[in-house]
Amino acid sequence: MSSRKLHLALHPYGVGGPGQHGLWKDPRVAKNSSIDINYYIRQAKAAEHALFDALFIVDSQFINATYPAHYLNRLEPLTLLSAVATHTRHLGLVGTASSTYNSPFNLARRFASLDHISGGRAGWNVVTSFDTGTAKNFGLDEHLDYATRYGRALEFVEVARGLWDSYEDDAFPADAERGIFLDPDRLHELRHEGEHFTVAGPLNISRSPQGQPVIFQAGVSEEGRDLAARVAEGIYAPGGSLEQAQEYYADIKRRTAAHGRDPDHIKIFIHGGPVVAATDEAARRREREIHEEDNDLGRNLALLGRSFGAYDFSRHDLDAPFPDVAHLAEKGGRTAAAKIVERAAAERLTLRQVAETVGAFRRSPFVGSPDTVTDAIERWFHAGAFDGINLAFRTDEELELFVEGVVPRLQKRGLFRTAYEADTLRGHLGLPVPVNRHTRERQAAGR
Amino acid sequence: MSSRKLHLALHPYGVGGPGQHGLWKDPRVAKNSSIDINYYIRQAKAAEHALFDALFIVDSQFINATYPAHYLNRLEPLTLLSAVATHTRHLGLVGTASSTYNSPFNLARRFASLDHISGGRAGWNVVTSFDTGTAKNFGLDEHLDYATRYGRALEFVEVARGLWDSYEDDAFPADAERGIFLDPDRLHELRHEGEHFTVAGPLNISRSPQGQPVIFQAGVSEEGRDLAARVAEGIYAPGGSLEQAQEYYADIKRRTAAHGRDPDHIKIFIHGGPVVAATDEAARRREREIHEEDNDLGRNLALLGRSFGAYDFSRHDLDAPFPDVAHLAEKGGRTAAAKIVERAAAERLTLRQVAETVGAFRRSPFVGSPDTVTDAIERWFHAGAFDGINLAFRTDEELELFVEGVVPRLQKRGLFRTAYEADTLRGHLGLPVPVNRHTRERQAAGR
Repeated sequence: MSSRKLHLALHPYGVGGPGQHGLWKDPRVAKNSSIDINYYIRQAKAAEHALFDALFIVDSQFINATYPAHYLNRLEPLTLLSAVATHTRHLGLVGTASSTYNSPFNLARRFASLDHISGGRAGWNVVTSFDTGTAKNFGLDEHLDYATRYGRALEFVEVARGLWDSYEDDAFPADAERGIFLDPDRLHELRHEGEHFTVAGPLNISRSPQGQPVIFQAGVSEEGRDLAARVAEGIYAPGGSLEQAQEYYADIKRRTAAHGRDPDHIKIFIHGGPVVAATDEAARRREREIHEEDNDLGRNLALLGRSFGAYDFSRHDLDAPFPDVAHLAEKGGRTAAAKIVERAAAERLTLRQVAETVGAFRRSPFVGSPDTVTDAIERWFHAGAFDGINLAFRTDEELELFVEGVVPRLQKRGLFRTAYEADTLRGHLGLPVPVNRHTRERQAAGR
Repeated sequence: MSSRKLHLALHPYGVGGPGQHGLWKDPRVAKNSSIDINYYIRQAKAAEHALFDALFIVDSQFINATYPAHYLNRLEPLTLLSAVATHTRHLGLVGTASSTYNSPFNLARRFASLDHISGGRAGWNVVTSFDTGTAKNFGLDEHLDYATRYGRALEFVEVARGLWDSYEDDAFPADAERGIFLDPDRLHELRHEGEHFTVAGPLNISRSPQGQPVIFQAGVSEEGRDLAARVAEGIYAPGGSLEQAQEYYADIKRRTAAHGRDPDHIKIFIHGGPVVAATDEAARRREREIHEEDNDLGRNLALLGRSFGAYDFSRHDLDAPFPDVAHLAEKGGRTAAAKIVERAAAERLTLRQVAETVGAFRRSPFVGSPDTVTDAIERWFHAGAFDGINLAFRTDEELELFVEGVVPRLQKRGLFRTAYEADTLRGHLGLPVPVNRHTRERQAAGR
């Protein structure tokens, strides 16, 4: 038995998800699930019943009509998670929010609020916004370039953490006899003046139960990995093959240590859309069905266009070589678009071939009977491919199959908890509660 | 019996409220109530049990250490209301948010999300932010001036309403057989380009149950009244004497009609902090106690300072004439600060006298036994002073006294509902559901 424990999060698909863009057509999926709070409350309760670490909500702030179903119509993550919070008691609540199209004061405050409401279960998945069209929803002519977005993200997290430390833990004696609600010596202005932000502070909400909500990130590029290693406490990693996952895992842990941080204080989750069935054969059959159901050329072209500023590829000949769109790829950093252009040139792919790769079903490493899936998870976990899995299921039945078939086997092997040992997301993930910077300074100075 | 019905909202004080800044010292008030979601859920359930129209949450985005208790530490309104939404079924949920320190895309989306989560009960109280220090929390050196803030507020509401109309009501056939989740002809970009905002749209959430969340405003100045008459469907009015309330009420209804709107489609609420007791004498005694408990010179000076950019008045002689701070009063519009300066000069007031007026307990018109309070409400209501009251109570016991003593009397007189007749905030307030602008245009063109 290993002392290292597996972490499990649930990524509710609603009417779709990555590589599951045709999910809404499944007769078992309610067509309004992405805007139905009761769907999310049920998913959260199921996840909590299964002792999962967290619910994980993805997001974006731009759509166009060609985008897949789950982009078009979905609840805003923090409103969603706040409603879920009071129907759960242990489950972590991780919401995605952009550091490019928010202001630090408002966002820090909303996450602190969620952390209070949930009793210490809030996590923020920091994204820099991928769709270049987002800029036009926020009054900017041009999307910020890659390097600027990542510089801004780093500073944004630093400002948010500074604001979360506005009040020391004992700032509110609320002593009616002495007439002292706030001890002003325990309140600290931030007075941040940086490259991207000027924020005076203080925040108008007390330090939350976790001290600071947990920071998640999804860094893939050089800049993204660096940001994650500097500030993230959880990562939604790209996954891929076992070797790719191991390379990523080792790289992030090494970078984190190089920044003077404990590599155990960054938990790496890969995306897992397991396909569990009674037998391996039934699971593989189901996987093929999903692949066929989900294949849609028009939608794949739209997804491909996302990487090139919502470019309309349908105007090009599908069977001609991939068109010359390198100038539409975002500059700075090895972006998704740059990689697509490189690969299309190197492998002389047609537009159709590229579209199929980009939009395609992501093959899950976890396909088979409960025993087979448990074996695969254990093997990958011990091989250093991840600390946790961000699980997504197409239907409630598939979630149930995993919870009833795989979770008990993981528990029997000592990989997964058999009861919650903590009430906060930090507690589940084994992350320390950060000491308020002003308290630390004061104590270091012997005051 | 009048066909015009009274509306009642609950403004939960938490640890304080306007003219109730010392409330936190009351032994019956939990010191953490302003950040305790269970406090708000209990208040909301009590309000719903009493058939109130809405819960009303105030807000600001700036504090300094001298501010009253309830400013220092409070939940963000939309996170709060979203958590409350799933614990109530009828109660309207009105949250305050600034049009000066938010972006239309994000805020429109959050209110649409709340409207979906609550099944059509969201309201937005539009404020332009009063504290000049707020600017420094958002990277601005200077707070926007009064006229600019009101111009921006008007355009902000127009943009939000445009975004809320991104999708027509039938935009999502979700027809699996034909493979059509979204009907692209029912999706509309906004392409707004105005003086303050450029927003392309569309929003990424379907039209919400109310069509558009209800817009509240709190216009007092010339600009504020004009904004309210143009766009508001509810107002949190200043109150004051019966004559002042009547003047305000008649003025707003007249201005609303002058803008071509039905004056019945703007509901005017005054602030009411009733003091109900078994007898008139007991209620008056309680009122005097509250006044004495709440009088605090230091806090009154801080509140006065709020109108002058958080200016520190404690450096001046209390009994000398009111200092020359006119240059600190915000320019443009007859602001609170300008009025204070005018009055201090006209009446030759000392600093102490001004501070006492500004910070003082606001005398409620509704003090007495249940019969006396019911009589006063009926008289003011029929005299055209308001359509509704935004009720605030210092303690749960005082809320209960009102609900058990006054509400049944209002019902007996035919002034207040005896059961909910609707499930949405628009329904309670008798406001129409706006037809989507694109549907209207299409229908007008016979398409």
